[in-house]
Order: sequence, then structure tokens, then C-alpha cells
Amino acid sequence: MQWYFVATLLTILTSSQGILTTLSQSNGGYQYDYATVPFLAEVFKLVVSSLLLWREFQKSSLPRMTMEWKTVALYPIPSIIYLIHNNVQFATLTYVDTSTYQIMGNLKIVTTGILFRLFLGRKLSNLQWMAIVLLAVGTTTSQVKGCGEASCDSLFSAPIQGYTLGVLSACLSALAGIYTEFLMKKNNDSLYWQNVQLYTFGAIFNMARLLLDDFRGGFEKGPWWQRIFHGYTITTWMVVLNLGSTGLLVSWLMKYADNIVKVYSTSMAMLLTMIISIYLFNFKPTLQLFLGIIICMMSLHMYFAPPNMLVDMPLTVKADEEKLIEVSVDRRTRP
Amino acid sequence: MQWYFVATLLTILTSSQGILTTLSQSNGGYQYDYATVPFLAEVFKLVVSSLLLWREFQKSSLPRMTMEWKTVALYPIPSIIYLIHNNVQFATLTYVDTSTYQIMGNLKIVTTGILFRLFLGRKLSNLQWMAIVLLAVGTTTSQVKGCGEASCDSLFSAPIQGYTLGVLSACLSALAGIYTEFLMKKNNDSLYWQNVQLYTFGAIFNMARLLLDDFRGGFEKGPWWQRIFHGYTITTWMVVLNLGSTGLLVSWLMKYADNIVKVYSTSMAMLLTMIISIYLFNFKPTLQLFLGIIICMMSLHMYFAPPNMLVDMPLTVKADEEKLIEVSVDRRTRP
Repeated sequence: MQWYFVATLLTILTSSQGILTTLSQSNGGYQYDYATVPFLAEVFKLVVSSLLLWREFQKSSLPRMTMEWKTVALYPIPSIIYLIHNNVQFATLTYVDTSTYQIMGNLKIVTTGILFRLFLGRKLSNLQWMAIVLLAVGTTTSQVKGCGEASCDSLFSAPIQGYTLGVLSACLSALAGIYTEFLMKKNNDSLYWQNVQLYTFGAIFNMARLLLDDFRGGFEKGPWWQRIFHGYTITTWMVVLNLGSTGLLVSWLMKYADNIVKVYSTSMAMLLTMIISIYLFNFKPTLQLFLGIIICMMSLHMYFAPPNMLVDMPLTVKADEEKLIEVSVDRRTRP
Repeated sequence: MQWYFVATLLTILTSSQGILTTLSQSNGGYQYDYATVPFLAEVFKLVVSSLLLWREFQKSSLPRMTMEWKTVALYPIPSIIYLIHNNVQFATLTYVDTSTYQIMGNLKIVTTGILFRLFLGRKLSNLQWMAIVLLAVGTTTSQVKGCGEASCDSLFSAPIQGYTLGVLSACLSALAGIYTEFLMKKNNDSLYWQNVQLYTFGAIFNMARLLLDDFRGGFEKGPWWQRIFHGYTITTWMVVLNLGSTGLLVSWLMKYADNIVKVYSTSMAMLLTMIISIYLFNFKPTLQLFLGIIICMMSLHMYFAPPNMLVDMPLTVKADEEKLIEVSVDRRTRP
């Protein structure tokens, strides 16, 4: 399977995720407990990975599986980073408004590039660095508030703590991705075995979170296992399956491609969601969305196109000024 | 003299032009006839070029001067193109609002690139084409109307004629520049002799325009030569000198550099003007201005940096996955 095929699929599914989540609401709110969705997605990923691992067992060749405690102990770490990230995210939102938070979220693209270089030791050309910055600039451009939109005065008027936490949030989010890539590429273990470990811990941590919420809420709405499927519609189930599937694709990319591919995939998904929303939810298309799309496309091309294709001059160039002017004279006088 | 020195000077002077023009207003309007400014600037350029040509005569070596009618006859053409352009511009503004017109003005960057290729036969790498598009995207981004600004609903709601004329306007503006470059580089004539011809016709055409305005207005305000210095302040004179000087610098660039350099120069000037306006006229700095600046800087670097510098990987790269992961493991376990 080619990485760009998986990346395209991830873009489409990530984009559907936003749209399905919006569609799963009714009367302007969720009729089900949204916190149960990530837990079920983890369970879905665990089941799928287990089945695939079992199928690998069936096929004569034994899948590579490192079982030693030292390695297994690394697998809860992504869940722990996400746990910290969620709390930092929550803290950030007490200081900044959602628009500013959304804009700051694009920082994640740049921090992923930096951690990719620092922790995985992967080197990028100047052009690739520029492409990463442009991707962040492009997604930010598409999110610039147009005129007539409400609550714009508040943008970037938050206290300094808000921005510090926002930067920390971007770093943690990038760290989780970079750490997962490190984990997946650390050895030649079967992807499915790695997934089983990852999602077992993922399911446990999500369950713990649901339980914690119940304790915090004094079990007013009953324990989570009693309300887990409450209010679920077909769309809610699609949200669960979609979230699970994107997770599996991300795992694949972490092992066989890298974090930068994932970042491009999800950024393109954001733009795709905005385009689809124009048709589906009557969103007003803005000039900044159009500009953002051009910038991101340029960035994509700059990052992934073969360098020769980018910098080579077309055939027979050589700045022979006199000759070129002759050519232009000819052209001009023709008619 | 290095072209980037001239280009930087052009950026600074072009930027001052906008600011001086604003400062030359009083009570929210011009107390002088603004149409006289370009005429005086042409005269200023003609005088300066004549003096420099005379100095060249003094210095033993005779400057190269093609005097034949066939060549001289090419020099009024830029003035004629500008004349047509001004009328198209006027017609465009009857269809579109000024915001849309300003945004469409950035098309000039792209049309200049295209005509540069078509008429001067100059070839560009893919990356340079991308840089040109990004420059146009960057300047457009900086001009995106922020929230709270008035008259934003009207953006891009004009009839199709407006856009057609806008595109035509961008083509004519680019054509004038490209034609001038062709003219200046056509032969090895002294720059000053070329300027003398260019500005003689420039002055004549500007004078004709003033006269035409008088006829149209039925000489209500008297003939133009009676009101030429009326209401002029020291700032108005600075506007004239500044406009004249930028013209001379552009001529120099057309001969010794090219249109793309000029386009970068004037685009950077636009951003510089916006930055200075924040301090001088209390303009509100916007997120889109910040994004636009980053995009244009990237574009500048992409266009002018040596290709090797852009695409070469830093030392000792070679994607030896295993080794890189070892490095990252070491780093992780160190502290």
C-alpha cells in the first residue's frame, strides 16, 4: 500500500469526522454523551487490530511480537501525553476564546516539524521547512475571521498565560505524535501487535476518564456503562467507526510514513471540511479560504515534489540577454 | 551599483510615496490639483536625466545614443499603454468597489510573470512560478478585510464586466512594465538617453491629459498652467520628488535588473506602508497582515535564494532509519 493512498484516505475520513459530528447533533446539541465516543473508538480499533493480528497468526508466518515488559511499558505513554494535553487544552480555554484557540492550534504544524527534527533526528531541507511554515500560515489564513462575523475583537486579547498554555498545548500534541512514530518504528514488530498494545492502554485510559467524570459529577447521570449507548443514532455509530478508522490509518502512517505526512493529511482535511460545509451547511465561501487553499497546495508541492522538478529551469535557458530580446522582437513584430 | 540596493531603495521610496500622499492631504482632501503631480514628476525625471546625460558628454567618452526615428518612435508606447490603462482602470471602478479593485490589483504580479515569459522569453523554474503566485497570494492576504470593517458584503459581488476589465487592467499594467524592459534592454544606449526619450513623451502625454481635463471641465478652474503650483506645500513637493525618484529607480531596474525585481520591490513597499501606517496613522495591526508578511518573505526567499541552498539537505542526512531511531533513543534516555 502506498503512503499517499493512505494519506488521502485519512484526509477524507478526517474531513467526514467533522461533518458527521455536526450531523450527529440534533436541536443544536448532542443527545448522547460525547465522551463515550472516543472510548468506543478505542475499543473498535482494539477489536480490528486483534482480528488482524489473529489473521496473521493463521497465515503460517508468526508475526514479530516483542513481549518484554521494558517495551510494553512504553505503550501507555501516548495515552498519558494525551491526558496531559487534554488538561492543558482545558486550562488554555479558560484564558482564550475558541477563535484564538483554533488559530493557535495551527502552531502544532510547526512544533511537529521541530520535534521531528529534535527527537527523531530527521533532517529537512530549507524548502521543506518553509513548506511546513507555509502550511501553518495557509491553514491560519483560511481561518481568518471575515468581516461581519461576530466576536472578533476578542482575537489575541487574552492574557499571556493563555498563549503560554496554547504553545504548551501545541508542543504536547506534537510530542504525542512524534512519540508514537518513535514507538512504531522502534522495532520490526507487527503493526497489529503494536496497535493492540497501544489501544489496550487507550481503552483503559478512556474508561478511567469516563469513570473520573462520573465521580466528579457525583454519579448524577448514573455510571458511564449505563448511559454508553444512550441516545445513539446511526450517525453516532458512524462517528465512532470513522474516528476508529482514522486512528488505524494514523497508526499505519506512523509506522510506514511519518508525522509530517499525517500533518499534511489532517490540514488538508480541515480545508476540505470547510469546502464541504459551504455546500452542506451553507457556509459563506470567503476570500481567505480560497487563499489558504492555494497556500497549502503550494506548501504540499514544495514539501513532496522532487527537488529537481522544483528548481530546474525549463530546457534551453541560459540568460543570453541579446538572443532573448531578439526572440521577443520577432514575436512582437509578427503581428 | 547592485540591483538589490536599488530595489531596497525603491521599496523605501514607494512606501514613502503612499505615506507622503496621505500626509499631503489636509481637511480630508487635497488642497492642490493632484493631476499636476505626475506631470511635474515627469519634468523632474526629464531634468535629472538630461543633466546626467550632459555629464556623460563632459566625460570624454561619448554616450551611446541611437537617434534613428525607428527607435525613437518606440518611446511613446509606454505612455500610450498607461493612457489606455488609466481609462480601463476608470471603467473598472464603475463596476467594482475599491476594495475589490485593490484585491484584483494583485493579479498584476501574476500577469507580469506571464508576460515576462511570453514577450521577453525569460524562463523561470517551477519554484519561481510558485514564488510569484505566493507573492500575489501574500499581498492579497494582507488586504483581507478584517471583521468589523465596513463595506465587506460588496466584495466580489460585481457584474462580470467588472472582473473582465480588472483582468484587462492587470494585463495592461504588466504590459507597460514588460514593454519598458524590452525597450531599455533593446540596445546598449546610455540609460540617460533612453530616459530622456521616455520622459519627454511622458511629460507631453501628461500635459495633454491636463489640457484634456481642462477642456472637459470647460476651463472652469482656469487652464492647468495657472493652477499648477496652487496649494502646493512642502509635502506636495516631496510627493513630486519622491514620485520622480521612484520613476528613475524603476528605469534603472528595467535596464539592469528586470520586472520581477520591480514587482517584489513594490509589493514589499505595500506591506511596509501598512506596517508604518500602524504607527503613523494608528491602523489596527491585523492577523492577515502578519500572515501576508510571512508569505511574501517566503516568496522572496524562494525566488531569489540559490536553488542549492533551498533543496540541499543538511550534512550527513541519508535516511538510515535504524540509526536515526538509535539517536533519538539516546537523546531520550540521556536526562
